[in-house]
Amino acid sequence: MRNIILASGSPRRRDLLTTAGISFEVRTSDADERTELTDPAEVVQELSCRKCLDVLRQMPSGTVVLGADTIVAMDGTILGKPEDEADARNMLRRLAGRAHDVYTGVTIAEQTADGKLIRKQFAVRTAVLIGPLTEEEISAYIATGEPMDKAGAYGIQGVFSRHVEQISGDYFNVVGLPVHAVYEALKNW
Amino acid sequence: MRNIILASGSPRRRDLLTTAGISFEVRTSDADERTELTDPAEVVQELSCRKCLDVLRQMPSGTVVLGADTIVAMDGTILGKPEDEADARNMLRRLAGRAHDVYTGVTIAEQTADGKLIRKQFAVRTAVLIGPLTEEEISAYIATGEPMDKAGAYGIQGVFSRHVEQISGDYFNVVGLPVHAVYEALKNW
Repeated sequence: MRNIILASGSPRRRDLLTTAGISFEVRTSDADERTELTDPAEVVQELSCRKCLDVLRQMPSGTVVLGADTIVAMDGTILGKPEDEADARNMLRRLAGRAHDVYTGVTIAEQTADGKLIRKQFAVRTAVLIGPLTEEEISAYIATGEPMDKAGAYGIQGVFSRHVEQISGDYFNVVGLPVHAVYEALKNW
Repeated sequence: MRNIILASGSPRRRDLLTTAGISFEVRTSDADERTELTDPAEVVQELSCRKCLDVLRQMPSGTVVLGADTIVAMDGTILGKPEDEADARNMLRRLAGRAHDVYTGVTIAEQTADGKLIRKQFAVRTAVLIGPLTEEEISAYIATGEPMDKAGAYGIQGVFSRHVEQISGDYFNVVGLPVHAVYEALKNW
């Protein structure tokens, strides 16, 4: 399997790739994350593509770059990273006792030596059912600091694991990368 | 929440409880793991109960003990830990490209100061869909040594993550403990 460049500073994505035995180096991107798109699957693909191409254009030809973006979607609204603790509290109140969707978009691209751009792009959806949360449980979780850098204000792989009743889809997609789909795409690159 | 005794030597269960913020100490059990039961949900509850009560009887009253047991079930057959590499290879060939169920049984019990035994017991099922596996992929996975101490010959949280297409249910149940159900049971203990 080819070595890749991961166009993401997320420590979760690094851990997932390392665990899955996929070799990579990290180059973070400064791509603009604002978009007018509203469909969750389109948003994450668009943002993953920007991150990927932003890094790709700084690399020599023959380099395979992977960009990814993860969001939480519920009732037609997209929840990104919370702006502050009050925002995190609002998000967690909304998620409590209900199901929502987590989307991760992935773009893998390579500029070949003869100038062609090869690109694979896809989005993976996982449904997540959160248990009821008391105000005390929300406050305790916010106090850990974990919500602040995470879409939807929670990380499934941390202490919030105790509040996750069930999921349907790829678990690792919720952490930040659909590992199986990425592995298959790179295996056949 | 009460401190508990975890009647299991599994490092995965320790990690899950630690991550979920549940305080515990470990006492391993020597309970016999043979059973004539064949229904997966009954098997894991029975074995979790034996481990739990085996440790409970060595503890002072007022101690809360948690026992757990995890198995893989497919086509009416129960897959435990593989006996050797050939057994692991057979299990992985069977799991490849298909869905199976992972059951974890949990028993939580306490002997009160006035001699009463309080006990909660349940089993949680998670469906897991594995992608197609080539003989090379199976050999590479066996070479890591990971399959040998794991029911069904795989650990979802390791390099095998790349072969897991999707799950339906509690992810942590597949790792070895249904964290949300355990948290709710202990919260209301």
